[in-house]
Amino acid sequence: MMTLASRSAAVPLKQVKLADPFWSRYIELVRDVVIPYQYEALHDRIPGVEPSHGVSNFRIAAGRDKGEYGGMVFQDSDVAKWLEAAAYSLAIHPDPKLEEQVDQLIDLVAAAQQPDGYLNTYFTVKEPEKRWTNLTDCHELYCAGHMMEAGVAHYLATGKRKLLDVVCRLADYIDSVFGPEDGKIHGFDGHQEIELALVKLYEVTREPRYLSLSQYFIDVRGTEPHFFLQEWEQRGRKSFYSSVANPPHLPYHQSHLPVREQREAVGHSVRAVYMYTAMADLAARTKDPALLEACENLWFNMVHKQMYITGGIGSTHHGEAFTTDYDLSNDTVYAETCASIGLIFFARRMLELAPKSEYADVMERALFNTVIGSMAQDGRHFFYVNPLEVWPAACRHNPGKFHVKPVRPGWFACACCPPNVARLLSSLGEYVYTMNEDTLYTHLYMGGEASVQFGDVPVKVIQNSVLPWNGDVTLTIQPEKAVEWTVALRMPDWSRGKADLRLNGEDVSIEDVMKDGYVYIKRVWAPGDTLELELSMEIHQVRANPNIRANAGKAAIQRGPLVYCLESVDHGAPMSSVSLAREPKLSSRFDPDFLGGAVVIEGEGWREETGDWGDDLYRTSPTPLRPAALKAIPYYLWGNRGENEMTVWVHLQ
Amino acid sequence: MMTLASRSAAVPLKQVKLADPFWSRYIELVRDVVIPYQYEALHDRIPGVEPSHGVSNFRIAAGRDKGEYGGMVFQDSDVAKWLEAAAYSLAIHPDPKLEEQVDQLIDLVAAAQQPDGYLNTYFTVKEPEKRWTNLTDCHELYCAGHMMEAGVAHYLATGKRKLLDVVCRLADYIDSVFGPEDGKIHGFDGHQEIELALVKLYEVTREPRYLSLSQYFIDVRGTEPHFFLQEWEQRGRKSFYSSVANPPHLPYHQSHLPVREQREAVGHSVRAVYMYTAMADLAARTKDPALLEACENLWFNMVHKQMYITGGIGSTHHGEAFTTDYDLSNDTVYAETCASIGLIFFARRMLELAPKSEYADVMERALFNTVIGSMAQDGRHFFYVNPLEVWPAACRHNPGKFHVKPVRPGWFACACCPPNVARLLSSLGEYVYTMNEDTLYTHLYMGGEASVQFGDVPVKVIQNSVLPWNGDVTLTIQPEKAVEWTVALRMPDWSRGKADLRLNGEDVSIEDVMKDGYVYIKRVWAPGDTLELELSMEIHQVRANPNIRANAGKAAIQRGPLVYCLESVDHGAPMSSVSLAREPKLSSRFDPDFLGGAVVIEGEGWREETGDWGDDLYRTSPTPLRPAALKAIPYYLWGNRGENEMTVWVHLQ
Repeated sequence: MMTLASRSAAVPLKQVKLADPFWSRYIELVRDVVIPYQYEALHDRIPGVEPSHGVSNFRIAAGRDKGEYGGMVFQDSDVAKWLEAAAYSLAIHPDPKLEEQVDQLIDLVAAAQQPDGYLNTYFTVKEPEKRWTNLTDCHELYCAGHMMEAGVAHYLATGKRKLLDVVCRLADYIDSVFGPEDGKIHGFDGHQEIELALVKLYEVTREPRYLSLSQYFIDVRGTEPHFFLQEWEQRGRKSFYSSVANPPHLPYHQSHLPVREQREAVGHSVRAVYMYTAMADLAARTKDPALLEACENLWFNMVHKQMYITGGIGSTHHGEAFTTDYDLSNDTVYAETCASIGLIFFARRMLELAPKSEYADVMERALFNTVIGSMAQDGRHFFYVNPLEVWPAACRHNPGKFHVKPVRPGWFACACCPPNVARLLSSLGEYVYTMNEDTLYTHLYMGGEASVQFGDVPVKVIQNSVLPWNGDVTLTIQPEKAVEWTVALRMPDWSRGKADLRLNGEDVSIEDVMKDGYVYIKRVWAPGDTLELELSMEIHQVRANPNIRANAGKAAIQRGPLVYCLESVDHGAPMSSVSLAREPKLSSRFDPDFLGGAVVIEGEGWREETGDWGDDLYRTSPTPLRPAALKAIPYYLWGNRGENEMTVWVHLQ
Repeated sequence: MMTLASRSAAVPLKQVKLADPFWSRYIELVRDVVIPYQYEALHDRIPGVEPSHGVSNFRIAAGRDKGEYGGMVFQDSDVAKWLEAAAYSLAIHPDPKLEEQVDQLIDLVAAAQQPDGYLNTYFTVKEPEKRWTNLTDCHELYCAGHMMEAGVAHYLATGKRKLLDVVCRLADYIDSVFGPEDGKIHGFDGHQEIELALVKLYEVTREPRYLSLSQYFIDVRGTEPHFFLQEWEQRGRKSFYSSVANPPHLPYHQSHLPVREQREAVGHSVRAVYMYTAMADLAARTKDPALLEACENLWFNMVHKQMYITGGIGSTHHGEAFTTDYDLSNDTVYAETCASIGLIFFARRMLELAPKSEYADVMERALFNTVIGSMAQDGRHFFYVNPLEVWPAACRHNPGKFHVKPVRPGWFACACCPPNVARLLSSLGEYVYTMNEDTLYTHLYMGGEASVQFGDVPVKVIQNSVLPWNGDVTLTIQPEKAVEWTVALRMPDWSRGKADLRLNGEDVSIEDVMKDGYVYIKRVWAPGDTLELELSMEIHQVRANPNIRANAGKAAIQRGPLVYCLESVDHGAPMSSVSLAREPKLSSRFDPDFLGGAVVIEGEGWREETGDWGDDLYRTSPTPLRPAALKAIPYYLWGNRGENEMTVWVHLQ
């Protein structure tokens, strides 16, 4: 089991200015397109798009408008996620217009808060008498958690306390309602989120009640007598969703067991990773070994048994959930964008607990593939489901694949993923480094400047990176004066240990200074010291564990952190008739004209001739194989050239 | 387009006495186990099994018992299907005890008929005021159709008219309610069945109104204004199933277009094939070229675009339905047993319209694989879903595969398939031959004796066959005196034209006398003339059309009419790690001890070593291949050795 000796903490967003040829484009896209577009969407001002009702619900709850509540029961969380994303954006890029929009929206949120501190427009407007009667289904604490995250982000970005004060009042009120004491509700939410939010609130306020309340929600979950079943009985055995007559499905909510006894990732994948994130947060602060062990077990199961090569998790759309070990079907997949974002949250917490490169490898895998792949290059269309194999005709005609979309749809009625992408990308700087008193860990290679301090010496670390296209990374260290500390650099799994490292031009033997996937360079750093890292960018043919039935006889292509895929627009349909040689000759080439510029991988493969099959479905003669030119493109760019077939896993010949 | 010049008709069941080493066991199993077991089940007398309510509903409707209606809205059809199966059994194997059970049950059915001729226990007992208010959902005409089939079968088997008279009164009453005339309902049933039943009733009664009524139901289907939508509006936009708020999904019921305009098989597959059967029946009798063309188009689409190699149809459990061309996923498959039985019905009608071997090939494929594969060797357990790839852990944990069962369950609450298997197998003799005035067509090779007549000369045709284990078939012709006619023998697709034929020991050149897959031998047949046919029983490695994405890079094994599969009990899991060489050495061997005796296929293949993968999900080094002994067993025997993995399509190395 890991020890907590080396615990580090993320270098905060305001101290990390990213300036990266790859990522800056995404961050700017979020700032210039996604945040403004979502602002309009929350105000129901996008023509032809289903109204969000997000802002309108707050206006009604605040008494500023008359009208009826609209949208899902958790619609408030869209407003909160937007505020959080906008706050991150303000932290890294001041923008008076955006700041004013944020301030106005915060005023509205504050006006919708009830005198006792309660804040939820659904129960304020629509069913005030039903407050706290259906935690299982109604997301009250979930919405509160998102608003707390927004309040913390806004305070850290701007120093303004208004929203922070709102959410502190909300947290105080919730603390008066929930807890182990007699007269309080001994319950917890159907959608975990408040647990991690309360830890954030504790970190900025240092109010121990917030940490205790988070701990309470984690501890009481899954204990007997079961709160969800008691609540269900008290409601007359009714669900919020009239179509559901059964009692709550406890594994769906990860409440089938006390969290410390959970060893396998089950149920709704977003709920799961949000909970695991909070568990890791609490383990770091309480040093509870049982909680830490549960985090490690759940991480292990998720990452070693139930994760797609793209960093997607949750393989079924039924309950947007995990299924079972190795059940990673490529075409009926769910792999929700939000779940991979939550996986990144969890990975960052695990990195803070112990710097093992696997955590960062997974974070990078999810980020470079599922997360940015979910967003169209226009910033206005998003995948919720991130398939690894798509056949558009089946998506249209087979109900088991209706959830898989061959092109990115616009902002949905249930708009959870786009604001989650926005808040992750605008706070991306927080995921690059963690540090403790004597070590700065570099987990992700992204250009930019980090401002930290060792002892009393301010230090700037300037990173240059041209990932994912090339593996050359340079760190230039600029302390105000020479000071001893340690730089730890992650050796990514995709470099397979093939890397060269130079300190001020002198070769460093990586093997000698490597531990748990990090290279440690301890020295007295002087201004201008440079570390040059050259990571191998070999093209890999990746095989899957034979227990993944869906990938038998297939390989995937990966180069650097990017998983590649093949699209039928380059090969003709059916995509499945194209195969790779077992030892293929593949070469990479940067194509500046390809969807904004990308490295494409080309090589020779094989194609089954389909032409002479006529109307036969089955026959005994083999289909002739012809050599075929293959072109693999980064997975994150799939579906940007019209509707077509796509596959990540390619048959081997 | 086919012409109707050569139309033939099935040689009736009472004229075909099967005595076949393979099939007689099944027919006896149905007689000795399935029919008695189902009789007990219909009487709710099987301990530990959900009550059927089938007989109890009739007792309540007949006023003999008090109580409440139980079971599905179409529960009457189970009683009808049992009566039909029992009648066929009586036709081929007199059994006084069974005949008495049948007579008693018919008395009960007659007693439940209403004075006006109406017969449906649900609407008689439970909602008498709602008769004919929801044809879309409530199966009234469907249940009537099944009772008509039972009445016809019972009359033909025993000469007794009681049930026939009941269903004629029922048909007369329905004819007074439905039709194009003013004041009648211009409607049709949500589940097609009565259409084909009315043709059977017409055949034994020669009452032209029954044929016209069938024609009416076929003609009005899918026309505008749409009956289901009108009915739905009149019901206040409600479905029988409270969870369904949407208007009826017209393609599900094959009512999205007038039937003559339908070119693709869509919707619920059992409904579809029952309708196509009636369409072919009507086309044969009315010679309507548009109806005939629709039958050919629908057959073509179903068999050349949407059929599994096992003769399964309907690839999704959502609506138990067809999806789209080439969408034949092996592991999320539906391929309901009843759908393959309906496909056999349709194929027999198409054979009557035109003797083309493809129709019989499909009939044989469905029969030897899906239909008998659906039944356990004990006759008490049945598959509804007939998968081509099974991984038990995924069936338990992935909701998208919950419908796929790794072992045959017992008689279900919705017990449509077992009685359908029983009625098909006990009437199997009806599928072997068709004839017209001068030709006897042999479609299936099964041992037994057919009694027919050419001109005024009675002829016995004695067939000996050891299929599916060996391809030697002998026909001995025993006319009472020499008479000229034609024997037509089907050349099965699986023999690939490799066959030897001898007439009284002399070789016959098959090519010279072959047309549409049948060999025609016209001569004056004398007593004792013999035809010996030796069909090639080569082992075939079958490839699928590359458009079937699910089968890319894979092959299936077939020998004679039997599709083979591999089970992990013989190979270890995961089954997907086993692969076939592209040109494998495979040999067949009859194993008398294997599940009652079967030809197994053995050979060398490859296996990916899974042992050294440890906890890796993905890696760059290829998995070593080791030679492995493969054992393929007939698909119909899968799942008889405990829960394990199974696959029909095997990766090619």
